[in-house]
Amino acid sequence: MAHRGDRDEVGERGEHREQSEPQEISPLTLNRLSFYLRCLRQLQELGKARISSQEMAQRYHLSATQIRKDLAQFGEFGIRGVGYQIDELAEHLDALLGLDRHHPMVIVGMGNLGSALARYVGFNHGAFQVVAGVDNDPRKIGKAVAGFTIRDATELADVVRASGALIGVLTVPSEAAQHYYDALADAGVRGVLNFATVRVKPRPGVPLKNVDLRINLEELAFFLKE
Amino acid sequence: MAHRGDRDEVGERGEHREQSEPQEISPLTLNRLSFYLRCLRQLQELGKARISSQEMAQRYHLSATQIRKDLAQFGEFGIRGVGYQIDELAEHLDALLGLDRHHPMVIVGMGNLGSALARYVGFNHGAFQVVAGVDNDPRKIGKAVAGFTIRDATELADVVRASGALIGVLTVPSEAAQHYYDALADAGVRGVLNFATVRVKPRPGVPLKNVDLRINLEELAFFLKE
Repeated sequence: MAHRGDRDEVGERGEHREQSEPQEISPLTLNRLSFYLRCLRQLQELGKARISSQEMAQRYHLSATQIRKDLAQFGEFGIRGVGYQIDELAEHLDALLGLDRHHPMVIVGMGNLGSALARYVGFNHGAFQVVAGVDNDPRKIGKAVAGFTIRDATELADVVRASGALIGVLTVPSEAAQHYYDALADAGVRGVLNFATVRVKPRPGVPLKNVDLRINLEELAFFLKE
Repeated sequence: MAHRGDRDEVGERGEHREQSEPQEISPLTLNRLSFYLRCLRQLQELGKARISSQEMAQRYHLSATQIRKDLAQFGEFGIRGVGYQIDELAEHLDALLGLDRHHPMVIVGMGNLGSALARYVGFNHGAFQVVAGVDNDPRKIGKAVAGFTIRDATELADVVRASGALIGVLTVPSEAAQHYYDALADAGVRGVLNFATVRVKPRPGVPLKNVDLRINLEELAFFLKE
């Protein structure tokens, strides 16, 4: 079902689900875990060592029951009356979300968006780093960007092998998205982040995440005064 | 609390909450409502007229109880044994999320990211449209991009007035983000979407949403095979 219909978050989340690993987890749970991890990181910065589900719920406007339920699925972390050890829980969530591993990335399509992402701080710290970029525009090939030289898109397989890229980032025109998803999968990347506004059919074993920047606008719109 | 600590989704969501309108709603609820709306739109495309919370839960891997609870807060939509009228519910969620209103937007910072967003489909259909862009680089000012001409950033107030922009999109270097948030607020925009990777202090009445593109990578990383 998730493959039908137009490109949207629904399908994308559905795909994730279909391809999810032994540990079944819903997209909204994953979103919450990611959110909890951000909360814990902020608490670490504030120098806190422990927090109860009640306090965490209050601080971040969450449900304490939901927090306990979500975290209980992955083992026993909280101690009744004491709360969660923040470092321990953050470390576990890091590992659960795969953030304790290094994820070198290759960008396919070094236009405006690709170039911006190559320099984007969030794509270049911690577990993630953009290590290579390709394009099919001869005017771009050979140019140095953010620590690497843009290579010819026809050499993608070689670029992936040489750079060790595990994630492919698609910032190509819509009509080229499926072709380069397939090329990335053939080249051996383990997952693809797609910024192209088109539905791409993923293969088993090479998960696809479609990025919909519009959702940020929709979330903002809710808070605008009439 | 939400204003302390480094830039991350936590703080941003916290700000939203602090500034939220009379109808109090948690960031995770908002995220779910936005997700439900996407589900409903897909169901509309599939030609469905009604759906029960159970069927919706099953299709999209959600909790039927959660769906009923979330939607019940905003009025009575479901009919027991019949389900939700999809068009009616989608229309209500559209209105609730402010998507039935037109949101012209101005982009501040017409570099790679700003230029990409000016042409981005998701920022240019339905309720949203990029109508203007400014930069402080003389080489960019006067250039035509996606239906408008880049104006001088010092003329921002005039640009906002003349274009009727209601949302400002910040794609400036970190060090300039606060300055241009303030300039946008002074110019009368109703909300700001911030792509700069720095914490901006918002004013009451001009909600700020920080976009963290990294979260997409984190969500993808979870699904990568070892």
